[in-house]
Amino acid sequence: MIIIVNSKANKEEIKGLINYIESNDIKVKATVGVNHTILGLVGDTVKLDIDAINTFPAVESVKRVQEPYKLVNRKFHELDTIVNVGGELIGGGNFKVIAGPCSVESREQILEVAKGVKESGATILRGGAFKPRSSPYAFQGLEATGLELLEIAKKEYDMPIVTEIMSEEDLPLFENVDMIQVGARNMQNFRLLKALGRVDKPILLKRGLANTIDEWLMSAEYIMAGGNENVVLCERGIRTYESATRNTLDLSAIPVVKKKSHLPIIVDPSHAVGIASLVEPMALAAVASGADGLIIEVHNNPQKALCDGAQSLTIEQFNTLSKKISKIHDIMKTL
Amino acid sequence: MIIIVNSKANKEEIKGLINYIESNDIKVKATVGVNHTILGLVGDTVKLDIDAINTFPAVESVKRVQEPYKLVNRKFHELDTIVNVGGELIGGGNFKVIAGPCSVESREQILEVAKGVKESGATILRGGAFKPRSSPYAFQGLEATGLELLEIAKKEYDMPIVTEIMSEEDLPLFENVDMIQVGARNMQNFRLLKALGRVDKPILLKRGLANTIDEWLMSAEYIMAGGNENVVLCERGIRTYESATRNTLDLSAIPVVKKKSHLPIIVDPSHAVGIASLVEPMALAAVASGADGLIIEVHNNPQKALCDGAQSLTIEQFNTLSKKISKIHDIMKTL
Amino acid sequence: MIIIVNSKANKEEIKGLINYIESNDIKVKATVGVNHTILGLVGDTVKLDIDAINTFPAVESVKRVQEPYKLVNRKFHELDTIVNVGGELIGGGNFKVIAGPCSVESREQILEVAKGVKESGATILRGGAFKPRSSPYAFQGLEATGLELLEIAKKEYDMPIVTEIMSEEDLPLFENVDMIQVGARNMQNFRLLKALGRVDKPILLKRGLANTIDEWLMSAEYIMAGGNENVVLCERGIRTYESATRNTLDLSAIPVVKKKSHLPIIVDPSHAVGIASLVEPMALAAVASGADGLIIEVHNNPQKALCDGAQSLTIEQFNTLSKKISKIHDIMKTL
Amino acid sequence: MIIIVNSKANKEEIKGLINYIESNDIKVKATVGVNHTILGLVGDTVKLDIDAINTFPAVESVKRVQEPYKLVNRKFHELDTIVNVGGELIGGGNFKVIAGPCSVESREQILEVAKGVKESGATILRGGAFKPRSSPYAFQGLEATGLELLEIAKKEYDMPIVTEIMSEEDLPLFENVDMIQVGARNMQNFRLLKALGRVDKPILLKRGLANTIDEWLMSAEYIMAGGNENVVLCERGIRTYESATRNTLDLSAIPVVKKKSHLPIIVDPSHAVGIASLVEPMALAAVASGADGLIIEVHNNPQKALCDGAQSLTIEQFNTLSKKISKIHDIMKTL
Repeated sequence: MIIIVNSKANKEEIKGLINYIESNDIKVKATVGVNHTILGLVGDTVKLDIDAINTFPAVESVKRVQEPYKLVNRKFHELDTIVNVGGELIGGGNFKVIAGPCSVESREQILEVAKGVKESGATILRGGAFKPRSSPYAFQGLEATGLELLEIAKKEYDMPIVTEIMSEEDLPLFENVDMIQVGARNMQNFRLLKALGRVDKPILLKRGLANTIDEWLMSAEYIMAGGNENVVLCERGIRTYESATRNTLDLSAIPVVKKKSHLPIIVDPSHAVGIASLVEPMALAAVASGADGLIIEVHNNPQKALCDGAQSLTIEQFNTLSKKISKIHDIMKTL
Repeated sequence: MIIIVNSKANKEEIKGLINYIESNDIKVKATVGVNHTILGLVGDTVKLDIDAINTFPAVESVKRVQEPYKLVNRKFHELDTIVNVGGELIGGGNFKVIAGPCSVESREQILEVAKGVKESGATILRGGAFKPRSSPYAFQGLEATGLELLEIAKKEYDMPIVTEIMSEEDLPLFENVDMIQVGARNMQNFRLLKALGRVDKPILLKRGLANTIDEWLMSAEYIMAGGNENVVLCERGIRTYESATRNTLDLSAIPVVKKKSHLPIIVDPSHAVGIASLVEPMALAAVASGADGLIIEVHNNPQKALCDGAQSLTIEQFNTLSKKISKIHDIMKTL
Repeated sequence: MIIIVNSKANKEEIKGLINYIESNDIKVKATVGVNHTILGLVGDTVKLDIDAINTFPAVESVKRVQEPYKLVNRKFHELDTIVNVGGELIGGGNFKVIAGPCSVESREQILEVAKGVKESGATILRGGAFKPRSSPYAFQGLEATGLELLEIAKKEYDMPIVTEIMSEEDLPLFENVDMIQVGARNMQNFRLLKALGRVDKPILLKRGLANTIDEWLMSAEYIMAGGNENVVLCERGIRTYESATRNTLDLSAIPVVKKKSHLPIIVDPSHAVGIASLVEPMALAAVASGADGLIIEVHNNPQKALCDGAQSLTIEQFNTLSKKISKIHDIMKTL
Repeated sequence: MIIIVNSKANKEEIKGLINYIESNDIKVKATVGVNHTILGLVGDTVKLDIDAINTFPAVESVKRVQEPYKLVNRKFHELDTIVNVGGELIGGGNFKVIAGPCSVESREQILEVAKGVKESGATILRGGAFKPRSSPYAFQGLEATGLELLEIAKKEYDMPIVTEIMSEEDLPLFENVDMIQVGARNMQNFRLLKALGRVDKPILLKRGLANTIDEWLMSAEYIMAGGNENVVLCERGIRTYESATRNTLDLSAIPVVKKKSHLPIIVDPSHAVGIASLVEPMALAAVASGADGLIIEVHNNPQKALCDGAQSLTIEQFNTLSKKISKIHDIMKTL
């Protein structure tokens, strides 16, 4: 940590500041510049409260040097983490396509979609049972029944399943789920993150609507700090001023995360763009950017989907896309 | 709702679309323009799923005409709602200042701050017991003990209290709390909103980090739809590209919300700017923009605060600010 | 254009509004809904001023149905435009890589880089002579001398050149430039756009720092409206709250632009991310998203570059990247 | 300037970095921490190129300690600058209201508005002659004729005038203009800024659509570095994801700028919100935030305005607002 000293601070104020820092078992080394004095703090500064330091009159500004996360940090864990989702591996060179409907609507629907996406090459099935909807009047998901239908599809087609959780209260219902998804709106629902840290299942952690990459990694740190090391990150678009797409897919997050962390990262092009015809180019771009997988919305009848039909591919469209994804991924492996 | 018809759509496609809409008990009136045909939908379109309509090939785009919220809508409830917080009224011309520390740290601290802010003119006491912190290693609040200390201060100084809830599981602990706060990160924690809809207490609903005013009103609609009509909105800054302040305080949200909704709206300048020296100008600006109140962080010793010290005012600073707030508010009443 | 009528408007106010619209030679068709009346406007509404209509008390809101651009609109020009840059074609299936240094620094430098990028597969040379710098104290480019050096490299290696213009006053100096670049900061320098509309050379129009796709297309419309149809668009990242990269590369703009317009679009990954190690994944992703080309910063000695060294590739790095780009592009052609 | 050394850097790489820095006449002081080594740079680091330093393999990151601006910096110029606009003072306690139409449309119009706003208390007249419009098909202003009409109003009502310039080529036409405005879209038109640095007139520099406060101050630095010290800043809203208002008015910029710089700063609520009914609350909030003045759009007949009618106040509305502004400002002087 570095402190820029206020150029108007007097000796006593500076001394008070240094005393405070040293009382936290941290050493202070000063560098006196032409216009500024800089204090370098040596020791375990993770314990130090930046806000508290900022209140000292001798402080002009404080800058962190160390990342605030440890367990997710590639600096302390060089090798890629590989997450096992019911037998399917993600990360460390293992690329996976997850597909399925936005929400589970009926036995027929989920079975038909599961069959379709499996035949097209997806190896993990997605489907929403608990749905976060911005309107209280919109379809909220089949909830427990939805989870049961997903499990039927899981057995029928031998595919691990991933589905979203909305409250730690529901955890008992997720026993047969292979990977639990934390949605964008809950990325900083810290109570939920803590509960998931105590769970023995992989977590798919979506990036929040307007969260930085560092905040996202801190949320992963919450889960890992609880003891659960199986976290897969998912970029799903961020909120910007541009309204031509629902969100702005931030593909540069893929190589940035790969530098900062050892955790696998996949991309959700469907939620990012919100328009079915844009899913294909963004899915292919995601593969070329180095993502470890994709999660794509597919519906047997998008016009009758109870949610997000506009961004869902038909099974046929997904089948076509799947072949293109494979071709790009095959080339990527040779680069 | 209005549908712009795709200029390449053939008659059958348009017919299919119209049949679908009419099967939802909605009438369709077409306006044929030079380059575009527009369908006007007459009926209760709240039930219609925009996403489903967007999947029809005949559709170029769909635009909502009606707001998606009803209970919070001023169109259906012209008079200002006045919320009673333990005897203190907010809204409809009633202006209140809420003050207190970011987090409750000890009996001495909360009693000293409560005394100080009451003497300076605040009538409701704030203090965090459950703290949402972006790092799992940061102080997470005194939790149940914090609530008990708040209650002691409430009795000692006869001030209603407001504090943040982080999970519906904790509701039983909030029995003696006068107003329950939903933090920015939980604005779209729909499970929590639903639980609060069943509660017989006022809710202070903060705007999410990057949520639109309409999404915010939809979250208030969740609470009201559950039966709880006592919602106070709180603008606390939104995330933008500017990093000189922690967030960008969006004061234009005050008059916009007042047009769209009958609910009272207050402003949190402390979290918006994150820097104590900027709290005063933003608090005064909030009053002049027409807000129904303020919520301000005050600490007896900001340098030793366990959270957000950098943005907390001392009791003396708050006392000074409080007088200025009164003067601006007195003038506002005469305009 | 559609007008939502204010539900409190009286008959006379509505009549006044309709009279105003009809006086502009536009027909009005009303659709009376349950809560709202909608007016559909039939005729050439491009002439109508939305702002003026918004001032009528009978108006709740106005929505445009038609795009505000015509010449750049794919609806009126179905085939892809192909732009000829000194013999090199861009668009309509023609993919090109433009490369070179941020700024021209010396004869040796530009010749060495030109040789290097040409041997690696780039076919158009870039290099800045007039440099927009946020600080008045930073290197501002070699200006006219820079253009002369670029022309020497052009002749020596038989490569068309592209370079940025900062003022219409400098146009006479650009006689031997093959494509004139408009930088992000000048995307809405309308005086410059008008001047470039009168020029008989291709224009490379970068997207503004925080401009929507529609505003960008309107700026292209300015150039085309002046008579110059040779516009190439360039996505170079937009400003968001995320600071891990200099800008956020919006690759979804590629398929969005291709739907809306017939103009070719290329990507500048170097300026988008601002970090050399991220250029490769973003360049490959851009190819997979369907871009018509790339513009990449390459320097013979990035550590001594007078500007933007941090994002420049060495010639060796560019050579490696260039092969990967070709492989991805070869696969794209087969999809 | 501070350099965080890459923890994997070897001794030779670090030595190479230090040699490079010292070759720029700057001293290096190292602080060796547990996980990180920090280099403090002592000397005039304004000359150093951060980008160049970033290219060294030994560098993990570089942080500036000193602001990149000098002439606009309050650190080197403690007293408020007071700008004289044709006899009217702005800054240093002098508060001024500028008013007038978006664009000058006719002799009658500008005279009527000038009379109205003067009688209501405005002391400087605004009016656009050269109009930056996003569409090439929109009214572009009366240009030279507009300037002539403004001058007639100036003489008739003895009010200094302010109007926007769009190109340095037009400077000769601005001889009788009292303050030259640089619009948001030209805030980083560096060629124009340089030309205005050589002019002997006050400049009203609007904040760019999505520019940071630091970039804005750097643009002011461009003008001051050219020799013109009379710069007035104008906050006019920034681009965010919120679409309820045209832009998001960033009033926290007022106290932030006042800390960082000695230049006066005013607020344009009309362009910020884009809706006439929101101008009043935002104007009052701006006064309470400490602004040195306001610039407000007023039209004698907003429905017939050739631009931005929707945000223009009538003369009557401005008259009412003007009294309220005075009352708030009178109180502010006593606080």
